[in-house]
Amino acid sequence: MPLGQRSGDNSESRYCGTEVAYNDEIENTLTANLTGGFDFIVAPLLNPSYRPSKAKAPPVGGLHVPPFAGSDLILSPSQWSSHVVGKLSTWIDLDSENDILASDSEITLKQELSWASHLSLQACLLPTPPSGECANYARCVNQALEGLSSMQLWLRMPLTCNEVEDVESTQDEDAACKVNSTQIIKEDSWECWNTFRMLSEHHSQLSVALDITSESLPSPNALKRWLGEPVRAAVLHTSAFLTNKRGYPCLSKRHQMLVTSFFNHNIQVVLSGMPQQLVDVSEGSSASEGSEKGSEGNGQVSVHPLRAYVDYISHLYKRMPPLTEQERFEMSYRDFLQAPLQPLMDNLEAQTYETFEKDNVKYSQYKLAIYMALRERVKEEDAETAVTVLMVVGAGRGPLVRTALEAAQEANLKLRVYAVEKNPNAVVTLHSLVALEGWKDLVTIVSCDMRSWEAPEKADILVSELLGSFGDNELSPECLDGAQRFLKKDGISIPSAYTSFIGPITAAKLYNDVKAHNDMAHFETSYVVKLHSVAKLCPPQSVFTFEHPNWSPKIDNRRYKKLTFEFSPDMGSAAVHGFGGYFDATLYKDVHLGIEPATATPDMFSWFPIYFPLRVPLYVPAGSTLVAHFWRCVSSTKVWYEWSVTSPAISPIHNPNGRSYWVGL
Amino acid sequence: MPLGQRSGDNSESRYCGTEVAYNDEIENTLTANLTGGFDFIVAPLLNPSYRPSKAKAPPVGGLHVPPFAGSDLILSPSQWSSHVVGKLSTWIDLDSENDILASDSEITLKQELSWASHLSLQACLLPTPPSGECANYARCVNQALEGLSSMQLWLRMPLTCNEVEDVESTQDEDAACKVNSTQIIKEDSWECWNTFRMLSEHHSQLSVALDITSESLPSPNALKRWLGEPVRAAVLHTSAFLTNKRGYPCLSKRHQMLVTSFFNHNIQVVLSGMPQQLVDVSEGSSASEGSEKGSEGNGQVSVHPLRAYVDYISHLYKRMPPLTEQERFEMSYRDFLQAPLQPLMDNLEAQTYETFEKDNVKYSQYKLAIYMALRERVKEEDAETAVTVLMVVGAGRGPLVRTALEAAQEANLKLRVYAVEKNPNAVVTLHSLVALEGWKDLVTIVSCDMRSWEAPEKADILVSELLGSFGDNELSPECLDGAQRFLKKDGISIPSAYTSFIGPITAAKLYNDVKAHNDMAHFETSYVVKLHSVAKLCPPQSVFTFEHPNWSPKIDNRRYKKLTFEFSPDMGSAAVHGFGGYFDATLYKDVHLGIEPATATPDMFSWFPIYFPLRVPLYVPAGSTLVAHFWRCVSSTKVWYEWSVTSPAISPIHNPNGRSYWVGL
Repeated sequence: MPLGQRSGDNSESRYCGTEVAYNDEIENTLTANLTGGFDFIVAPLLNPSYRPSKAKAPPVGGLHVPPFAGSDLILSPSQWSSHVVGKLSTWIDLDSENDILASDSEITLKQELSWASHLSLQACLLPTPPSGECANYARCVNQALEGLSSMQLWLRMPLTCNEVEDVESTQDEDAACKVNSTQIIKEDSWECWNTFRMLSEHHSQLSVALDITSESLPSPNALKRWLGEPVRAAVLHTSAFLTNKRGYPCLSKRHQMLVTSFFNHNIQVVLSGMPQQLVDVSEGSSASEGSEKGSEGNGQVSVHPLRAYVDYISHLYKRMPPLTEQERFEMSYRDFLQAPLQPLMDNLEAQTYETFEKDNVKYSQYKLAIYMALRERVKEEDAETAVTVLMVVGAGRGPLVRTALEAAQEANLKLRVYAVEKNPNAVVTLHSLVALEGWKDLVTIVSCDMRSWEAPEKADILVSELLGSFGDNELSPECLDGAQRFLKKDGISIPSAYTSFIGPITAAKLYNDVKAHNDMAHFETSYVVKLHSVAKLCPPQSVFTFEHPNWSPKIDNRRYKKLTFEFSPDMGSAAVHGFGGYFDATLYKDVHLGIEPATATPDMFSWFPIYFPLRVPLYVPAGSTLVAHFWRCVSSTKVWYEWSVTSPAISPIHNPNGRSYWVGL
Repeated sequence: MPLGQRSGDNSESRYCGTEVAYNDEIENTLTANLTGGFDFIVAPLLNPSYRPSKAKAPPVGGLHVPPFAGSDLILSPSQWSSHVVGKLSTWIDLDSENDILASDSEITLKQELSWASHLSLQACLLPTPPSGECANYARCVNQALEGLSSMQLWLRMPLTCNEVEDVESTQDEDAACKVNSTQIIKEDSWECWNTFRMLSEHHSQLSVALDITSESLPSPNALKRWLGEPVRAAVLHTSAFLTNKRGYPCLSKRHQMLVTSFFNHNIQVVLSGMPQQLVDVSEGSSASEGSEKGSEGNGQVSVHPLRAYVDYISHLYKRMPPLTEQERFEMSYRDFLQAPLQPLMDNLEAQTYETFEKDNVKYSQYKLAIYMALRERVKEEDAETAVTVLMVVGAGRGPLVRTALEAAQEANLKLRVYAVEKNPNAVVTLHSLVALEGWKDLVTIVSCDMRSWEAPEKADILVSELLGSFGDNELSPECLDGAQRFLKKDGISIPSAYTSFIGPITAAKLYNDVKAHNDMAHFETSYVVKLHSVAKLCPPQSVFTFEHPNWSPKIDNRRYKKLTFEFSPDMGSAAVHGFGGYFDATLYKDVHLGIEPATATPDMFSWFPIYFPLRVPLYVPAGSTLVAHFWRCVSSTKVWYEWSVTSPAISPIHNPNGRSYWVGL
């Protein structure tokens, strides 16, 4: 039974599981747990005492026949695949120096994965590598991954990063510093995960199950990294719970936030362990007074021993605020790569205009900017007579025309508007709008590319909305440079400036989606994407700035920026799968508009960020520096970006000469 | 005029060039230098005073027209391409913080490369990056490389690595240690080269010209690295020369060795600078006494001012020992990737047998081993009566049969030989050999796979030559495990054991040859290759060992080895393009045979090393540790290797499940 229902949210995270011990009668275990409020069980596949080397010698040439409990007929195929996650034997240690143990481990791992595949399980839980070593374990899992159809493998990793406790326990900053920093690297479970998945080449069926026990949580920075990793489940131990005044299990504030964050990132909770609170739970979810412990082991009759825990998790789920309209709109775009636009070469479709015209926040910022520009440009004494010439370049179906007219009305000033639009289909709608609204005397419609139009007069104000997610990436600079011929020398451009921003991210899902194309070109392309299951590892930094109008005698829109990102030591090491890109634009003086996270305009939905991938994921050790280079290159026919990193490792320069990705002029 | 002629050596390194100053009349400069004993000149393409930003403004929309001296007609097309290397302006600095300089540099670089392409020059010399920064320079060169047809770009790098001097000047180990190690990294010119070529993604047309001045040479370890890099030329400055007693230029012993090593690695010498020795050189190569300086600038009439230098270089060239027969045989195989054999699935050709049968050194080792085994096995008192049963498994066309019979004769012992061979074509030749030599009573020929043969009696000695370059890679273990059924329990296998070895190498040429296939499978394949232009960065370490006979109840020929290589700090950082693989075999007791460099059997030519590539070249910082993992995997139908590195960076596991490369059983 799902934890709850949220309108618009179909995330897997509403299903809660529980980890169970080995049992010959898995059908009873499953029934008891489904009745007890869980949706699936994480169950061992083999008797934990099984060891291939102790098994009876197989006939010559034959294979070991594992002593599985029962057959696949115990459960129906749909029960196996919907309600059981296979748990691999926890004793396996493929990197053991004990040859027999290592060999037994390899045989058992293969047997169990093969059995799990036979049962069509959706996922298997792989035990945590017992030591820091995992190369042989990874090799064997990697071999298995090559042959799996769709089963996910969840590598169980403790959610620990010892640095927080160490730093807290030693106040002596100077002497202890070095010792601690060594410990961070050694004991950070992320390192082991990273080694394992790098060896397995970021296989899309290899993911993580985080183990949350009574140990204190890592620092927020260290936790953050995991949001960009393919975490599928969180195994929440009863020992991680506190007891409230009434004797019921509950979680600390930090743990509550963490679990909520799991829900928001499609991570399923799996409860594990024995009940630790002295609560007797009667039927349903309401609890009676008393201190008698729920009887264990015969869940079919009595109340499930973890009932209070699953009720609490359900409570956390239901307590989440409902999705806003914007969130629901964005839900289906989360972490979904969109091919970049070719705005000058292609024409937008009606549906696209429709969507973007609804962004009221954006247009109210434009209205404010136009209002202020008009008020400052027209002297008080000329207000009644002066007619300001305003040209909307790239007018589309007219939203900025409407905005400008509204701003003029509010400012009580006269306006003559030219609406310049190259898309003949949008021009049709523009004419109908002007007729409908009775703007015939105010608005002149020009069906022309702004770069080639010969204007009958010069403009006081040039208004445009040509910005892409990365600011200049839809060639606003080139368009406005072409259009400023018909702007008065003291005229105003709205926007007057814009700057792109970039920051390194962990984004395993995006990386794998790019990789799935199986070519280099897709790694040398940028994508518009609603970044969600992504870890923003450093605050974004500014990249390229453009100002308009630009009256310099020789306009050069090529740019080069070297960026240096310092990674916080308390985050631990991290994987960088590329860069998240944003922009901020100054429309007029104080009026800005943008999606750069720190200064983003709230409730605006016209732009998702942009993602620049790296061909090879970059390992950044704790506290080190990432140096990235971004170029904006311009030829007579196209504009493109090139990018690379030179520290802590050196990547090839991506997209030389725009060979994989460019925007046509 | 070439420096000299060595029989069998067609290396480019016999051509010597000289660096000349800018001159309007390049035709005269060329003639003077060709007459003066040089084969080509390295000449500036543009007047060094040219700056695009100071040039007259171009017409709107037009391009800068560079003030080139003269036209392409000054020289004939073949003169340009055979005798001129273009030297790019040395003032260019694309990473300058001075925007005008950076912009002028980019324009000039593109103009010069375009001009050089127009002239069909074979190569251009790119100036050394002025500071440690080179990302923008690399980006621009990388863009140019995308469009070049065949021209090579030689990036000029000083052959310096300051660490030697620093270590010598500070004897205080403890305190100075850290400072020095920082300096190593900063001032090692290899680092800058590495950054540049990593950004350019190991482009095959980007190579190095090393500058050798009066500065002392780096440590032998630091020098060694360059042998695996694509070094095409060495610019030898006159300041690097000493003066001998008679006033003639000469080089120090270390410099002589270096220049000889350049000759051996196809690296051309370019002389540069003004004469520094007080020698007047008369015509030809013999020198007269006196102290008058050769007149400069009108080389057409007088003797070339660098005549004594080029004569000395020619002397070094001619002084090299002539190529041995083995070297001449191997010359055409140097750094040439050979696809691995499928010895069990395919049959060898006659030519292959022919070649390998000529390896006298190998067979004399076998003879010694068989001789010793016979002598130890047969008691003195039984010598006249006992007949030892010796089986050659994989007899081919019979060389080991002959060797065994010779050994028995020398030992004065009786032998009954079985020659087992699966290739029916080789069996034909075996029969003819036996008839020809009159061995009919001694040798039984068996046309059968040794793994399935039912022998009429058991053998005292099993002799085989099934080893590959990596020992077990041609499945000697599996074959001998199959054959030992007909070996007596106390019988002897020759070889009795073998071990594979592996060591990290810089091998830019091999890496690029693998990369040229443009797929992943070739990076997951091992190659037999005569390693020549390769830097062996660490002594090889042992990997897998097999012993025969192997009477353990359950034979397991799978292996896993984790290898740890410590990189010498005095080498500086290095690039690892993969691993060189070797083997050493114990034939019998002290008699061994192998190609592991430290213990290699001299003058044996049957095996070249094996090369295991890495998909992404690995940067190993000075003094750090490389951890590599090698697996030998076995299924019912095939054997394959998997490999990976986990330090200083983590690679994917190569060749999982033998998906790209395997040897069939």
